[in-house]
Amino acid sequence: MKYRIERDTLGEVEVPVDKYWGAQTQRSIENFRIGPPSSMPMELIHAYGYLKKAVALTNQKFGLLSARKVALITQVCDEIIAGQLDAHFPLVIWQTGSGTQTNMNVNEVIANRATILAGHKLEAKHRVLHPNDDVNRSQSSNDTFPTAMHLAAYKVLVERVIPQVKQLQDGLELKAEQFKELVKIGRTHAMDATPLTLGQEFSGYASQLHHGIQALKNTLPHLAELAIGGTAVGTGLNTPKGFASEAASMLTKLTGLPFVSAPNKFEAQAAHDALIEAHGALKRLAVSLMKIGNDIRLLASGPRCGISELLLPANEPGSSIMPGKVNPTQIEALTMVCAQIMGNDTTLSVAGSSGQFELNTFKPVIIANFLQSANLLADSCTSFFEKCVVGIEANHTQIAEHLNNSLMLVTALAPHIGYEQAAVIAKKAHAEAKTLKQAAIESGLLTANEFDQWVDPIAMTKPRKA
Amino acid sequence: MKYRIERDTLGEVEVPVDKYWGAQTQRSIENFRIGPPSSMPMELIHAYGYLKKAVALTNQKFGLLSARKVALITQVCDEIIAGQLDAHFPLVIWQTGSGTQTNMNVNEVIANRATILAGHKLEAKHRVLHPNDDVNRSQSSNDTFPTAMHLAAYKVLVERVIPQVKQLQDGLELKAEQFKELVKIGRTHAMDATPLTLGQEFSGYASQLHHGIQALKNTLPHLAELAIGGTAVGTGLNTPKGFASEAASMLTKLTGLPFVSAPNKFEAQAAHDALIEAHGALKRLAVSLMKIGNDIRLLASGPRCGISELLLPANEPGSSIMPGKVNPTQIEALTMVCAQIMGNDTTLSVAGSSGQFELNTFKPVIIANFLQSANLLADSCTSFFEKCVVGIEANHTQIAEHLNNSLMLVTALAPHIGYEQAAVIAKKAHAEAKTLKQAAIESGLLTANEFDQWVDPIAMTKPRKA
Amino acid sequence: MKYRIERDTLGEVEVPVDKYWGAQTQRSIENFRIGPPSSMPMELIHAYGYLKKAVALTNQKFGLLSARKVALITQVCDEIIAGQLDAHFPLVIWQTGSGTQTNMNVNEVIANRATILAGHKLEAKHRVLHPNDDVNRSQSSNDTFPTAMHLAAYKVLVERVIPQVKQLQDGLELKAEQFKELVKIGRTHAMDATPLTLGQEFSGYASQLHHGIQALKNTLPHLAELAIGGTAVGTGLNTPKGFASEAASMLTKLTGLPFVSAPNKFEAQAAHDALIEAHGALKRLAVSLMKIGNDIRLLASGPRCGISELLLPANEPGSSIMPGKVNPTQIEALTMVCAQIMGNDTTLSVAGSSGQFELNTFKPVIIANFLQSANLLADSCTSFFEKCVVGIEANHTQIAEHLNNSLMLVTALAPHIGYEQAAVIAKKAHAEAKTLKQAAIESGLLTANEFDQWVDPIAMTKPRKA
Amino acid sequence: MKYRIERDTLGEVEVPVDKYWGAQTQRSIENFRIGPPSSMPMELIHAYGYLKKAVALTNQKFGLLSARKVALITQVCDEIIAGQLDAHFPLVIWQTGSGTQTNMNVNEVIANRATILAGHKLEAKHRVLHPNDDVNRSQSSNDTFPTAMHLAAYKVLVERVIPQVKQLQDGLELKAEQFKELVKIGRTHAMDATPLTLGQEFSGYASQLHHGIQALKNTLPHLAELAIGGTAVGTGLNTPKGFASEAASMLTKLTGLPFVSAPNKFEAQAAHDALIEAHGALKRLAVSLMKIGNDIRLLASGPRCGISELLLPANEPGSSIMPGKVNPTQIEALTMVCAQIMGNDTTLSVAGSSGQFELNTFKPVIIANFLQSANLLADSCTSFFEKCVVGIEANHTQIAEHLNNSLMLVTALAPHIGYEQAAVIAKKAHAEAKTLKQAAIESGLLTANEFDQWVDPIAMTKPRKA
Repeated sequence: MKYRIERDTLGEVEVPVDKYWGAQTQRSIENFRIGPPSSMPMELIHAYGYLKKAVALTNQKFGLLSARKVALITQVCDEIIAGQLDAHFPLVIWQTGSGTQTNMNVNEVIANRATILAGHKLEAKHRVLHPNDDVNRSQSSNDTFPTAMHLAAYKVLVERVIPQVKQLQDGLELKAEQFKELVKIGRTHAMDATPLTLGQEFSGYASQLHHGIQALKNTLPHLAELAIGGTAVGTGLNTPKGFASEAASMLTKLTGLPFVSAPNKFEAQAAHDALIEAHGALKRLAVSLMKIGNDIRLLASGPRCGISELLLPANEPGSSIMPGKVNPTQIEALTMVCAQIMGNDTTLSVAGSSGQFELNTFKPVIIANFLQSANLLADSCTSFFEKCVVGIEANHTQIAEHLNNSLMLVTALAPHIGYEQAAVIAKKAHAEAKTLKQAAIESGLLTANEFDQWVDPIAMTKPRKA
Repeated sequence: MKYRIERDTLGEVEVPVDKYWGAQTQRSIENFRIGPPSSMPMELIHAYGYLKKAVALTNQKFGLLSARKVALITQVCDEIIAGQLDAHFPLVIWQTGSGTQTNMNVNEVIANRATILAGHKLEAKHRVLHPNDDVNRSQSSNDTFPTAMHLAAYKVLVERVIPQVKQLQDGLELKAEQFKELVKIGRTHAMDATPLTLGQEFSGYASQLHHGIQALKNTLPHLAELAIGGTAVGTGLNTPKGFASEAASMLTKLTGLPFVSAPNKFEAQAAHDALIEAHGALKRLAVSLMKIGNDIRLLASGPRCGISELLLPANEPGSSIMPGKVNPTQIEALTMVCAQIMGNDTTLSVAGSSGQFELNTFKPVIIANFLQSANLLADSCTSFFEKCVVGIEANHTQIAEHLNNSLMLVTALAPHIGYEQAAVIAKKAHAEAKTLKQAAIESGLLTANEFDQWVDPIAMTKPRKA
Repeated sequence: MKYRIERDTLGEVEVPVDKYWGAQTQRSIENFRIGPPSSMPMELIHAYGYLKKAVALTNQKFGLLSARKVALITQVCDEIIAGQLDAHFPLVIWQTGSGTQTNMNVNEVIANRATILAGHKLEAKHRVLHPNDDVNRSQSSNDTFPTAMHLAAYKVLVERVIPQVKQLQDGLELKAEQFKELVKIGRTHAMDATPLTLGQEFSGYASQLHHGIQALKNTLPHLAELAIGGTAVGTGLNTPKGFASEAASMLTKLTGLPFVSAPNKFEAQAAHDALIEAHGALKRLAVSLMKIGNDIRLLASGPRCGISELLLPANEPGSSIMPGKVNPTQIEALTMVCAQIMGNDTTLSVAGSSGQFELNTFKPVIIANFLQSANLLADSCTSFFEKCVVGIEANHTQIAEHLNNSLMLVTALAPHIGYEQAAVIAKKAHAEAKTLKQAAIESGLLTANEFDQWVDPIAMTKPRKA
Repeated sequence: MKYRIERDTLGEVEVPVDKYWGAQTQRSIENFRIGPPSSMPMELIHAYGYLKKAVALTNQKFGLLSARKVALITQVCDEIIAGQLDAHFPLVIWQTGSGTQTNMNVNEVIANRATILAGHKLEAKHRVLHPNDDVNRSQSSNDTFPTAMHLAAYKVLVERVIPQVKQLQDGLELKAEQFKELVKIGRTHAMDATPLTLGQEFSGYASQLHHGIQALKNTLPHLAELAIGGTAVGTGLNTPKGFASEAASMLTKLTGLPFVSAPNKFEAQAAHDALIEAHGALKRLAVSLMKIGNDIRLLASGPRCGISELLLPANEPGSSIMPGKVNPTQIEALTMVCAQIMGNDTTLSVAGSSGQFELNTFKPVIIANFLQSANLLADSCTSFFEKCVVGIEANHTQIAEHLNNSLMLVTALAPHIGYEQAAVIAKKAHAEAKTLKQAAIESGLLTANEFDQWVDPIAMTKPRKA
């Protein structure tokens, strides 16, 4: 590989000639060989594209940067946002906990790429932008990195997670509608219980996601608060008055998202409670989806030795040894994602609580886990929806057989003959392997007619008419 | 001990004569010798007091229970609410996962206590109320237990957690006000950084709690949704039409809290996402308080070999071996509580995701952990506020010394002489153990006058005037 | 209540006359109103009984305490160990993180109780032992509290957890033996798979616990290392040379457990990795038991609409609304305990990683969670064993029906006709709702004879004979 | 892109012509668009290389596969092990929970690559190996995937984690040696305490890692147990008798690692407790490293306004806004890794406890998190060692100043004048801002000579001579 020489305040460093990054990025590569390269999420880099552009424009407004410099910065930022410079961001999550090295990576790439755009070679004498004095003007890693975190997190929630969970919720509601008259046995404690409709069962799943989306939306206002303008420790040192709110407005303009300047910058840099809070909502959705996935998996268990009330689409051969096997693979992917998100939430709690004084220095691990959880949740909801939920069918034969066999329809007798007598009938049927009706009539406590009138599975799926 | 004989559908059981519970409670005592006795939270029992009263009144309204029976139920419930019958609830958390045995404990105690109130002895022939057919009328454990969970959780949040966290927030804001002009050195990466005021530092803590309370409030609407009326599997079997909303209204009337009937009872019984969500907000507050506690602990470290910028009240001798030692004990209690709540959150995630079909059977562990977290958080915030925060004083001498010694005031020079030259000065001062001003002047890059004008710690705590 | 006056280095305090504690305990009561009173685990107090006795005897050996004083200390310690003084330990977990206040509670109770035993009244002039200079001689809270933690933890593991998990393992092995010839359908992905015996299934559960006990035993050597002798910061200040190993030997003698003096006291006081490690093994057992419990719960689901291959004992009426219902309640208690332990493990990770410098100050929350997990695990294993496992029966009819219906016996054909042709047969049987044999014969790929010879469920539960 | 047609039991699929994978792999790509592509850890694929080779050789031994077929399989496996075929493994973690699709990916790549090696084109008619009947012979995904998990996990622990943690332990012991005479003030509760040597402090860190490595080693025997030979549900169906132990021996031979055949295959496929256990040990190391990292970070805090007793190497400019700032960046990377591992442990607990019946279907998420934790731990220990620990220096001036100022040397007086009088002196010194000696002499309780004799910081770092 060929190298050029770059410099920072510690001295000279060799950098690959075909890369735009500078000395500090290169030092970070060498100092932090932890995990696979380039692990810092690209969404954060793209968020930095919006941010550096917005700040450059804001600096211009305050007379702190020339129109020419701003134009160059803007041009490179547009390339970053479009993903054209992804190869120039080689750093890992496991670097300095403020993300300073990634902020400098962005500053260096913008400065060097600008030199090229200005028609020069990458040599010190041709430098048109200083990474710190120009690109980083009025900023610190300590306010830009958390701002980029919020940008990236907000975007993924509103653009991916919420719509994709909603799509799944809609899919489940459609099933609830489709199955709304189909009466089946209910189960509590995994044991036979009183009946409900299959549609009612699915309505519960849809309702869980409905509430989950609401919980996620509740976290957006705090996430909309941006640290930018706080600089080193939250005071706004080296920024002009009004800079913070102007930069937030500019970001709203560029992204179309309702960002505001954080009323308290000290919190915004020293803590990441907004992300902890929003991830808590992702985790809460994972808890819901684990339950939903497990239910559907068990309801579809079989085909001949399980509950088998649902039929799932067969997307692939299920087994390398058992020919003809079909498995609930989408649910397996979904529930593995849920396990991941629950663990990521612990990571965020530890990381979020470990800030010291004016700076939380667990920033990269927080945003990386947040974005992983959000993207996996969005992806797996869509996959589960498209490859499984839309194709779910009811196994009418099995559902009817279960309903007819169950003893727990006895519950409908309790208001008529009392809980204790009803229990006698249920136990008799169980012990003697009879149907409930047989046992009821034999008990002498009611007539066949009364049984038919009182034990009506369809009526049992709703409150009594007044 | 003396015993009387009680019966349930499985047969006879001996029960201590001086206790109101019945056969099913007694079976549970014997079947579940897990952990210390009576561990089921008493707040849940008291919530059941409200619930059974509300349901009895609702049953009366629908003509399902006589005025006399309702009067008796109401009278016992008032005793339960007042805590007068606590000794009659001996069950543990680690019982059936639906809480059925606790529901039956309540039913049995109400029925038996009513017999006494009606002037009879506790003999079967004198029974005035049937635990299932009367006290549990129109109900199931599966809807009453989650309803009692929400009642107890909602109450503890609005009556204890929110006001007590708010009191701490106010206390921190008062400190922020008190210290708002006191300039001190900031710290990022635990290293000296640019200055801020001590008041600004405390304002960040207060802001964290402000946002945390908001997050908690966001979870209340879902928590206000009650399962009551769903009975066995959420369909409302054995309830009259309109029962669910009437019961919720009655509970609102009795408690003064804005409960509503859960729009989807299937979710409300099969999942506890509302509690997972609300506990997520408690955990998020724990994350904030861990950070706040750690900061204050470190800022007060010393008295002679630490940072020592804060002075905490001395409430007790700190050491059994080191005479005269004073320790940040309130912070230690607070941060231990935070660790507990973070763990409880994992418990809730596991328990909340493990429901099957129409019922989550991890109910007792969910509510027990929820109430523990809530009460510990409330208690420790009050303790921290009263025994620590109100007495915090600034160590002016040490703060001034740190501020004067710091090299990071150099940051104020960067906009004037550029980042790189400023770095040269900082390094020179560090290497030669000089003051920043000395090094600056010796560098020849600026005059003493310029230094004094540019490096103004007070000015560094805010953005520049336009 | 009546009070007497007690004194410490901060001044005078009022203490209830009928209690042996002193000024520092009373201050702690008043300063830490967090959670229910007396929450500090009594097992830790009893461990302190052994410890203070051992140290007194060690001090005597080194000539640091008179025979008379040692005799008094010993006498009170024996009362503490016997649980006779439990009412005199009112402190909570949520106190100073070193447990200093509990150490002083012990010191004060010993000193005051000794005064009584010596025939005096509790007045300063009659004091026969000084809580610090005598009872705490050669000690600090910083070495005694972690020593008591290890004593209590080690005891509960070897005396309760290991034998009680072993009892459950043995119970499962007995079932494995009982069911070793009973061939049943296997399930993978919750879907029908190839057969195994019910005994093989249970042998897997037993094997999990076997490995789990081994994992727990692996943690004992580190737990056997005691901090005593480290005093304030691990250096052994104010102890005579040889004191640490002598004290550990004395504890071994008194308890019969193989304790050793920690080779590195700095670790032993500043970190609690030994407890984190041992709790990790408890958590790992919880993971095993969650799986085992869930399996048995699902295999017993029914009675008519589930898998229903197992029959569990009916210990109580299962439902307050559904007469005659029987539920897997022991499993519910067990799995709730597992969820609790998983959460406690997170608490321990946070608490264990949060020590600073020479002392971890999350000691009480660590030991309280450890002992809760250990006791709950022991109790619930015994309960599950006695009230459930011993009574598990196989539902032979259902097991046979499932086995006969299954399509996955097709796997036995693959080595003969190839995976792809075998898949064709399985799919044909599924699509046409035929038995596997029917479909196989109709496929023309093999004869009825070959089918009977190749598809032998019993043979399918083992490797082929050579 | 150009495609060829591949077939499986569900029909035809288009596959890129330049890739060796087949129909099932392609279906998985299309069915599971969750997270970034190719996320299944490559170490697992390489482990599969060893496994498929070992099994082919074992099959040959039992006469189940021709020498020619075995030679071809072996040749491709060697390419897989060497990493030459990495581009042909495009699947993600979030697929079927048994890893079946990855097992088939391996089977397909081996079969197709063998066709090429045999000199043919990738057309059905030229197929020399059948992915199921030959490559997967005597196997199932259900035993191969967990075997590959154990292979990959065992390898990373013994080849990377243990040596790299050991290297760090050695590095810390070297520092302990280097600083063994350097007396400094100790700190408990983050407050000044009695002295110890800096070497003693570092010896505690080293001891933590020593114990941590032992804990990790304790988990190896369980991890050495392999599932191979269990096939579909653990019974060994479709394997010849003796196959399992022969395959394990072959793997030992090929890898040089002491693998054994799992005595109980039902456990080995239905549960992953061995990995939960081993990850518990990784988590426990993370807990240790979090403490160690935090301590060193705080001891190095400053340079002028912190504790500043340690000097860390400056590897890069620390701040984008504060010129000349140096930060503890290696510690930040390390502690972020610790937070990640703590969260991964929660993921593993959830995933490990969620198996059902004969198969745990959270396999990919378990191994992916395990390998991430292991690699990050190894990498960050090496990075922390090389870039930080080796360069740590003591700040002698500051250490001496702290030692001389401290009041807690008063503890040495307690055995001579009693705890209470000693406390009076410490408080006097604190209140009057005097040195301890001054206050002691002024108290009249001891002479200057006695003070000098009794208060000897060096003597305070060890027990008293007899």
